[in-house]
Amino acid sequence: MEIIRKITKCKLIVNDLKKKGCKIGFVPTMGFLHEGHLSLIRMAKKDCDRVFISIFINPTQFGPGEDFKNYPRDIRRDSSLAEKEGVDYMFYPTVKEMYGSDHKTVAEVKELGNIMCGKYRPGHFAGVTTVVLKLFNIVKAGKAYFGQKDYQQMIIIKRMVEDLNLDIEIVSGPTVREKDGLALSSRNKYLSAEERKNATILYECLILAKDMIEKGEKDLEKIKKIIMVKLKGNRFVKNIDYFEFRDPRTLEDRKRVNKDYKNILAAIALWIGKTRLIDNMIIKV
Amino acid sequence: MEIIRKITKCKLIVNDLKKKGCKIGFVPTMGFLHEGHLSLIRMAKKDCDRVFISIFINPTQFGPGEDFKNYPRDIRRDSSLAEKEGVDYMFYPTVKEMYGSDHKTVAEVKELGNIMCGKYRPGHFAGVTTVVLKLFNIVKAGKAYFGQKDYQQMIIIKRMVEDLNLDIEIVSGPTVREKDGLALSSRNKYLSAEERKNATILYECLILAKDMIEKGEKDLEKIKKIIMVKLKGNRFVKNIDYFEFRDPRTLEDRKRVNKDYKNILAAIALWIGKTRLIDNMIIKV
Repeated sequence: MEIIRKITKCKLIVNDLKKKGCKIGFVPTMGFLHEGHLSLIRMAKKDCDRVFISIFINPTQFGPGEDFKNYPRDIRRDSSLAEKEGVDYMFYPTVKEMYGSDHKTVAEVKELGNIMCGKYRPGHFAGVTTVVLKLFNIVKAGKAYFGQKDYQQMIIIKRMVEDLNLDIEIVSGPTVREKDGLALSSRNKYLSAEERKNATILYECLILAKDMIEKGEKDLEKIKKIIMVKLKGNRFVKNIDYFEFRDPRTLEDRKRVNKDYKNILAAIALWIGKTRLIDNMIIKV
Repeated sequence: MEIIRKITKCKLIVNDLKKKGCKIGFVPTMGFLHEGHLSLIRMAKKDCDRVFISIFINPTQFGPGEDFKNYPRDIRRDSSLAEKEGVDYMFYPTVKEMYGSDHKTVAEVKELGNIMCGKYRPGHFAGVTTVVLKLFNIVKAGKAYFGQKDYQQMIIIKRMVEDLNLDIEIVSGPTVREKDGLALSSRNKYLSAEERKNATILYECLILAKDMIEKGEKDLEKIKKIIMVKLKGNRFVKNIDYFEFRDPRTLEDRKRVNKDYKNILAAIALWIGKTRLIDNMIIKV
């Protein structure tokens, strides 16, 4: 595996691979790799001739009070894991390399970036789409892989790709979970032992919603209320950002199950102590 | 010359040309071609193997009260002129083809888009950069040509290209002028005979500034005041949006001539009757 620190170098390699007709697969990450990332790498390995990952903790997608400085980093472990999975190139630029001293351009998906997590993290998705667009232009992959755990991010990136006429296919991989249901996240590292135990509540709420819908409950507002009661009963849940039902494609709000719907997205974001966790589930109706 | 109406068709042609190793030159326009556009096409013809132009009056770069509906159109004349210049492909999409029904993404160069013309046309440059980015992704040219008459636009697009790591070179062509100095613009068509005669005042002001600077005047605020008096003395000048001195690269405001400067940008925007005209000049100091 080759580690690339410079954009120009990365472009040279990419252009050379493309001349040879290689299909490039790309897994953009913020590092501290877990089984979720690795499952995306494995998908890319199956589909493509060469696999790139990027490791870049993007400052512009963190808000002023957020965890940019403390976000977990372990580049040695990351490179060893990536190498084991057969990653061909790891693009690992500095913040200066990515943004220079005079960066002024922002690519933003309006509306979709202001709801759900965007409501609680203003500017977050504009930071994500801008850096992802830059990375797409540097790596020029035919396919890029994103985890379904960050569902809203995946939808926003798909919208951007379509709107900006980019020649890249966005492939989404299923959320990887611990045995007790907790979705894998680099941020799980922040949790104390007791918090970790209680963090399964996100998954429990999603399963509860799924069960109620599958048993025929049409009133999604009613399900929400029941889930809110459950969440408020757990003393480790410090803040409930949202529990929402949305259209899985458009992210439009859903209040009732309608026979026209095939699926409903249930999405949750809350704080366990000082750690913000998110999860979601597509529920067949 | 082939006229292309569909994005998918354009991408097929472009990908085929790129496989063959063709250098593509691209001149994006809003049509109603004049000698300014044609001079850019000639530059592209010299540099590149194949030349694309686009003709697309982009609604998102017009404000609510602006001239989107009345913007001059003459596609027959445009195709005949383009063909004569040896343009290979004319991309001429509909608004629906470019924006579909669910377009939500905006690419914006912050700061640079809010000054000068941006101050008087809020959202204009975000509309420009978004459509230009889309066109770049569709045509995938190695070089794109922009007129220096739209100087701020050219600087903003260069900034976007650098920030988003695009593989395209922005080439700027000199402003083409009528014999009496008026910069060519599709909007000159709006002018009555008397207005047309008086529209030379933009160029006269730029020349006046140039002369004063070349004679050693360092106080740019003083030059501005003299020019304002001149402008206010012309009854055809209905509104003076701005007359400004700026750094030609960063567009920073300039109040005095400093020995560190090599050049100063003088830029003007004003209304002759109901027609908004702009012009600019790079003055050596």
